[in-house]
Amino acid sequence: MERTTQPSNKELQVSSSLFRAMCLCTGDMHEYGKWIQRQSVMLQLVDCVFRGVAQVMFVNNPLSGFLITVGLFLQNPWWGLNGLLGTLVSTMSAVVLLGHDRGAILAGLYGYNGTLVGMLMAVFSAKGDWYWWLLLPNMFMSMLCPVVSSALSSITSKWDVPVFTLPFNILLCLHLAATGHNHPYFPGPFITKSPPWHHNSTMEGLDVSQLFLAVPVGVSQVYGCDNPWSAGVFLLALLIASPTIFLHAMLGSAVGVLSGLALAASHGDIYSGLWGYNSALSCAAIGGMFYALTWQAHLLALTCAFFCAYMTAAISNLMSTVALPACTWPFCLSTLIFLLLSSETPAICRLPLSVVSYPEKNLQYYRELRDSERSKGPQQIYRSGSQSGVPGVLEGTPEVPSEMC
Amino acid sequence: MERTTQPSNKELQVSSSLFRAMCLCTGDMHEYGKWIQRQSVMLQLVDCVFRGVAQVMFVNNPLSGFLITVGLFLQNPWWGLNGLLGTLVSTMSAVVLLGHDRGAILAGLYGYNGTLVGMLMAVFSAKGDWYWWLLLPNMFMSMLCPVVSSALSSITSKWDVPVFTLPFNILLCLHLAATGHNHPYFPGPFITKSPPWHHNSTMEGLDVSQLFLAVPVGVSQVYGCDNPWSAGVFLLALLIASPTIFLHAMLGSAVGVLSGLALAASHGDIYSGLWGYNSALSCAAIGGMFYALTWQAHLLALTCAFFCAYMTAAISNLMSTVALPACTWPFCLSTLIFLLLSSETPAICRLPLSVVSYPEKNLQYYRELRDSERSKGPQQIYRSGSQSGVPGVLEGTPEVPSEMC
Amino acid sequence: MERTTQPSNKELQVSSSLFRAMCLCTGDMHEYGKWIQRQSVMLQLVDCVFRGVAQVMFVNNPLSGFLITVGLFLQNPWWGLNGLLGTLVSTMSAVVLLGHDRGAILAGLYGYNGTLVGMLMAVFSAKGDWYWWLLLPNMFMSMLCPVVSSALSSITSKWDVPVFTLPFNILLCLHLAATGHNHPYFPGPFITKSPPWHHNSTMEGLDVSQLFLAVPVGVSQVYGCDNPWSAGVFLLALLIASPTIFLHAMLGSAVGVLSGLALAASHGDIYSGLWGYNSALSCAAIGGMFYALTWQAHLLALTCAFFCAYMTAAISNLMSTVALPACTWPFCLSTLIFLLLSSETPAICRLPLSVVSYPEKNLQYYRELRDSERSKGPQQIYRSGSQSGVPGVLEGTPEVPSEMC
Repeated sequence: MERTTQPSNKELQVSSSLFRAMCLCTGDMHEYGKWIQRQSVMLQLVDCVFRGVAQVMFVNNPLSGFLITVGLFLQNPWWGLNGLLGTLVSTMSAVVLLGHDRGAILAGLYGYNGTLVGMLMAVFSAKGDWYWWLLLPNMFMSMLCPVVSSALSSITSKWDVPVFTLPFNILLCLHLAATGHNHPYFPGPFITKSPPWHHNSTMEGLDVSQLFLAVPVGVSQVYGCDNPWSAGVFLLALLIASPTIFLHAMLGSAVGVLSGLALAASHGDIYSGLWGYNSALSCAAIGGMFYALTWQAHLLALTCAFFCAYMTAAISNLMSTVALPACTWPFCLSTLIFLLLSSETPAICRLPLSVVSYPEKNLQYYRELRDSERSKGPQQIYRSGSQSGVPGVLEGTPEVPSEMC
Repeated sequence: MERTTQPSNKELQVSSSLFRAMCLCTGDMHEYGKWIQRQSVMLQLVDCVFRGVAQVMFVNNPLSGFLITVGLFLQNPWWGLNGLLGTLVSTMSAVVLLGHDRGAILAGLYGYNGTLVGMLMAVFSAKGDWYWWLLLPNMFMSMLCPVVSSALSSITSKWDVPVFTLPFNILLCLHLAATGHNHPYFPGPFITKSPPWHHNSTMEGLDVSQLFLAVPVGVSQVYGCDNPWSAGVFLLALLIASPTIFLHAMLGSAVGVLSGLALAASHGDIYSGLWGYNSALSCAAIGGMFYALTWQAHLLALTCAFFCAYMTAAISNLMSTVALPACTWPFCLSTLIFLLLSSETPAICRLPLSVVSYPEKNLQYYRELRDSERSKGPQQIYRSGSQSGVPGVLEGTPEVPSEMC
Repeated sequence: MERTTQPSNKELQVSSSLFRAMCLCTGDMHEYGKWIQRQSVMLQLVDCVFRGVAQVMFVNNPLSGFLITVGLFLQNPWWGLNGLLGTLVSTMSAVVLLGHDRGAILAGLYGYNGTLVGMLMAVFSAKGDWYWWLLLPNMFMSMLCPVVSSALSSITSKWDVPVFTLPFNILLCLHLAATGHNHPYFPGPFITKSPPWHHNSTMEGLDVSQLFLAVPVGVSQVYGCDNPWSAGVFLLALLIASPTIFLHAMLGSAVGVLSGLALAASHGDIYSGLWGYNSALSCAAIGGMFYALTWQAHLLALTCAFFCAYMTAAISNLMSTVALPACTWPFCLSTLIFLLLSSETPAICRLPLSVVSYPEKNLQYYRELRDSERSKGPQQIYRSGSQSGVPGVLEGTPEVPSEMC
């Protein structure tokens, strides 16, 4: 992937115009993004909510967000409604509370935790669908999402790493721990510490077709969905926005399934995609999103997916003792560890958060940077103090917007 | 509160002389503080211990500290004795270990964790009162308070946030977890995971007078006291030092009671003030102490109090699985989150720790700062990099001691 | 120790040549280290693995590492094999992943977590010895050691503190929590929450000879060994490398035994050295390794050992509720707290990580620094901003390599 031949100028022009045409609905929909900024506030808010829904999977694309919303309603309209409401409340709370950090709000970065909080509070409610009182804690928790996000990013920004879904994890666990499964108003799920490997220490009885289905379903479990049709819609949304994210989410989910088999997990858990979603997120985050997609980064992403699956087993067991689900803690912790890694190998290049957009563009940025470094000769390459994990800045290269790594 | 009319010069003189007269026993007792520094070391130590006792509620006032000590002895002389001893040992340990950070030691900032450790170790001891062996672990843990405080503030100072009562929480949980309720020498309390909402899912049987009493008692639960007379003395101490702290502590405690009702908590817990103390501390910390008291900060304080009450429910449930009390973890965590928040709204202005004194003075400082900003016109206002949460410094305004925000 | 008379020039020459002769096999074997760097890669790798094995006890000495390896095989060849394999895989993973941080890799700093992970995964496996499948998770976890080490040191380097054995603690707990004691492939130990003070609240039945034996065995429990002969070999290895580490490890272990008695622990636990190993590590780390060995630092080390023993009791109890062993969490946490302490007492001088080598050399460095400060007079001494815990740099003193503290 990295080793494609450098295209000539003419080819560049053709591919550039094709690229621009594709840009209308792929990637972060840059042209459309410029257009929407001239529209009314209501339209911008709708755009912002859909981007927020998609940002759960690192996708900054309103079309993908719309498709994912369709997938959510396909799974369960009540869950979809809660998810949309959470995104809306969270985004508006960010506007009111945090003022004019417009860029991040418009990109949906203050929405995706609200999406998950809304969805998963509905998923884990034992009162069933259309229990309208649930909207009260739902809105309160969604309102707090930007507060927790902002506080956490005050901390993580020292190391230039994102907060991922940590605010969602914190707030959902807070709600579930505060109520519990026998609460009179907001009962939670009944989670017991059941050792998942009692009866099937062998591979016998394994349904291979279900195993293959577990891979896409694992991706859809990011949103708490287990409907294969929803999974299909989600994957389509990912494919439109970024084939790299699509590929790595599938690979990560497959790695999760394999790890589940290797650790003798119960077949039911594997089939329902519970072993896949954390690994899918980890693999997509490392493979192209926050690292430039080289072969080495690809291998690192697979390692991280295995590590994440191991961590899923550990954290599920630990949290089941206090009757909490694993949420996406394994994804957050494992990916943060792999992002904080300070490698001196040039091919493992972490991008500064300010230039991260989507894997294909990240790769383009990385290549431009590398080429400009090469053309200058090795004596002019400044490398960041990788020990601290914070990117340094290359001097004297004004062609590329903000250079590093 | 923020929108009072600007007083004329003559009014300022009158109010200034009145303010100076009040200063003798209100606020941080500045004049008295200068006087005590010329006295003997023993007197200074006594002053320092009383300030330490009051610092639990953010009050830097020896008179309040004396009143609170009276309240503690009113509740239980043995608890009061342990609290005083803890403060004394903690302060002296800070002098010996940490050397000459005189300012913080004299303000009682190395004493308040010792107060709480001493008091609560006595409260949670199953051996009853006047069990003299308890003084051994009490003194050991109080001695370690400055060590843990200093270590934690090495970390938190990167974000310019205080350590609050985290050292107390850590050391008390350490002691209780190390011993447990069936320890032969230092048995702890018997805490079980009892779902507090079995039998009263409805509002029936609610005693309104007890509910109103729960508000002041909630404030006194900060010190582990449930005696209404002690609560009265504590509130008087707060009122003398700072009406703003008094008001917000009461509001916070009321919010805690309301949250308890909304979450269907057991009536006994609500009456005994266990739902109020964390919210009271959170509300006082956000409402005027570390943020300048604008209307927006006031609303933020109430939101934080609700969030803190939710967190109290969650943390109590989680920690009861390992037989530990919630201590003031919910207050510390919720307030830290709200302090790390980086808002760009000008009316939500976090004060740098170096200028924080007491709410009324903080507000005065904030107004002077805002006025000096206004007089200079908007083009000269430098705003801190709010992303990192660390205050920047305004240039070119030498009239105000250390300007920011 | 600090107050020995300053030697004259002639004495210095004699002692210097003696010192150089001793250097061949004591301290960090500097001369040998230079020689090995000119040898083949295989020899360097062997050297590196032995240094890694010894770095668990802060010793950067291949001879000590060899002796300790002998001790491990004396205890149990299977455990020793796993430990060696873990060290090897961890070191090679660091070379491949992290590139050319040669200094740290050669000093074994990317090996010691692998040693412990390998050893303790074998110790805690319920499948018994020579269960070859265990090598799979063993190698995977060892491979991840440098990843977790590097990520954690990105964080801790902001405060100039080491990561200690945190990567080992994290990865071992991850493995044990992911599998559990009834896992079909990799069953873990059966750990229950048994209150260890039911039956022996008094001192009766105490075997004094076993109590004395518990001190050296406590040191060997760092590697999970309880064989007195192994303990003897380990102590010999420490004595060769650094008498100061030897002394403080013994003192720390003794403090742990005393704390166990004071907290009424079960005699069996005390005899087997489980109360000693964390305190031994803490005491060695504070007493001479990361602080210059003054009398004050010596007292601080003993305090830290007591604190660590208390913490061992607390963490063992807490972690037994989720069926995990305490590992070396108490050591890591207590020592980090005591290292983050920002004292203004000149005799409590924390050395910057970049100059830390072994206690005797650290002391020499501290004395040179102090003398050069004295000769310049007090007006030229710059002191670091001890608040932040990060060492400052003294200006204008080019004689000493990198000056501070």
